[in-house]
Amino acid sequence: MARATVRRRVVRLRGAEAGARPDALAAEEPLEIRVGGEALTVTMRTPGHDFDLVAGFLVGEGVVHSGEELAALRYCAGTDAEGANTYNVVDATVRGGATPLSAHRNLLTTSACGLCGRDTVEAVRTHVRWPVADDALRVGPELLYGLPDRLRAAQRTFDSTGGLHAAGLFDAAGELLCAREDVGRHNAVDKVIGWALREGRLPLTGHLLLVSGRASFELTQKAALAGIPLLAAVSAPSSLAVDLAEELGLTLVGFLRGQSANVYTRADRIGPADRV
Amino acid sequence: MARATVRRRVVRLRGAEAGARPDALAAEEPLEIRVGGEALTVTMRTPGHDFDLVAGFLVGEGVVHSGEELAALRYCAGTDAEGANTYNVVDATVRGGATPLSAHRNLLTTSACGLCGRDTVEAVRTHVRWPVADDALRVGPELLYGLPDRLRAAQRTFDSTGGLHAAGLFDAAGELLCAREDVGRHNAVDKVIGWALREGRLPLTGHLLLVSGRASFELTQKAALAGIPLLAAVSAPSSLAVDLAEELGLTLVGFLRGQSANVYTRADRIGPADRV
Repeated sequence: MARATVRRRVVRLRGAEAGARPDALAAEEPLEIRVGGEALTVTMRTPGHDFDLVAGFLVGEGVVHSGEELAALRYCAGTDAEGANTYNVVDATVRGGATPLSAHRNLLTTSACGLCGRDTVEAVRTHVRWPVADDALRVGPELLYGLPDRLRAAQRTFDSTGGLHAAGLFDAAGELLCAREDVGRHNAVDKVIGWALREGRLPLTGHLLLVSGRASFELTQKAALAGIPLLAAVSAPSSLAVDLAEELGLTLVGFLRGQSANVYTRADRIGPADRV
Repeated sequence: MARATVRRRVVRLRGAEAGARPDALAAEEPLEIRVGGEALTVTMRTPGHDFDLVAGFLVGEGVVHSGEELAALRYCAGTDAEGANTYNVVDATVRGGATPLSAHRNLLTTSACGLCGRDTVEAVRTHVRWPVADDALRVGPELLYGLPDRLRAAQRTFDSTGGLHAAGLFDAAGELLCAREDVGRHNAVDKVIGWALREGRLPLTGHLLLVSGRASFELTQKAALAGIPLLAAVSAPSSLAVDLAEELGLTLVGFLRGQSANVYTRADRIGPADRV
């Protein structure tokens, strides 16, 4: 269990030459997420930090909002051909103010009636427990520009496989609090937010979340439901990610590379260097 | 409907300078896929080629295998606040040899019991109708090296947004038959395979599929269920993608960049230039 990389033999082509050599691959395995014994979803993830992943997933779907609402997490069921536990099924026990699972027969993003982008944004807005619109976070551009290098320095597996997405949680001073890698970018974000939940840090008022690659609606939803006022991505955001960020008053930054970035919403949180 | 890009105002940071300008974003909207009126899943996709997306999705899940099994596709239900059709719900009518939907209460990849990677690979193997192990495709490395540029040249939306994944289907001579873009790489692949299904081209014996970014288990599954013997990716594959490709006898190529590539499985299909 919990191998982040797997070694395999590969044929390497360079021009017309071919040669065999060993290679490290990013590990991918299915993880079934259950709540109270009932299967909720299956995600293909890189093993490791599975409890964080499940906790963060449940935050992003609006099921739990604090460590107290998450009574227990345990590996269960699932054995391989040799009868050993696969560690690919996690059951969560929720309590207290947790939203009943019956309200999540379809996951949050899939339950919008009418199913236009507008309704999807609205469905998330009604599940947000900690509105971020009034978050007083304010950072200078230089702090933003420094985040990708800090996250990259913490990415141990990417260096060996080139095959993992990453997410990093930073405080308002730009200090990296938690970095996670996964074959799925959404899983990396769940692992970071789940870590914060289990550390008793929710809501993540005044924090910044950085993701490798693009910013989708789904990632923006996950940031919002954790109370994070600023989401930054190394690549482009989608239209619906920007719509959701605008509706919620969340600062959405894209194309954060070198000494440049695009700010799609709530740019007032990012002041010129001489004003911060 | 069917807008691939959306224009928005963005604050552009360059060093300590900030200025507002218009920007094009990749469009993202939910699409609900129904079969016989029953909701199967919701995917966040870029509008456009929706029928191809649904057709390809159903191929990748092992529900339909030919154009004949797909009796009809239509937009249904879903109206926005003004009562206009959102074009975000598509209902498929299947017939003939189509696998009954009841066998897909959980989607194919999520239905493996035990839920180890081994079982997940096995679940896909049992759904493959056109085994690719004996496919006689054989290509030289120079043909492979030329594919990314050909796909990139067909990516119109990426040039304006930087925000879309792409998938391209090529014949054995390296000719690009179909290219599709989407905020989700899996959707781009579904759109390409759905196009082929609706064109009566399945199984895609002797064809090559190229995807931007990484090769996951899910993308390998989609290629295999369409009968494609070679999947190439610009970035890294995951461990389970390689496991599945090996089990099925599918050639999996990763890190296809410039004059180099890694071949993870069935490298015998890629001969040195002087042998092909």
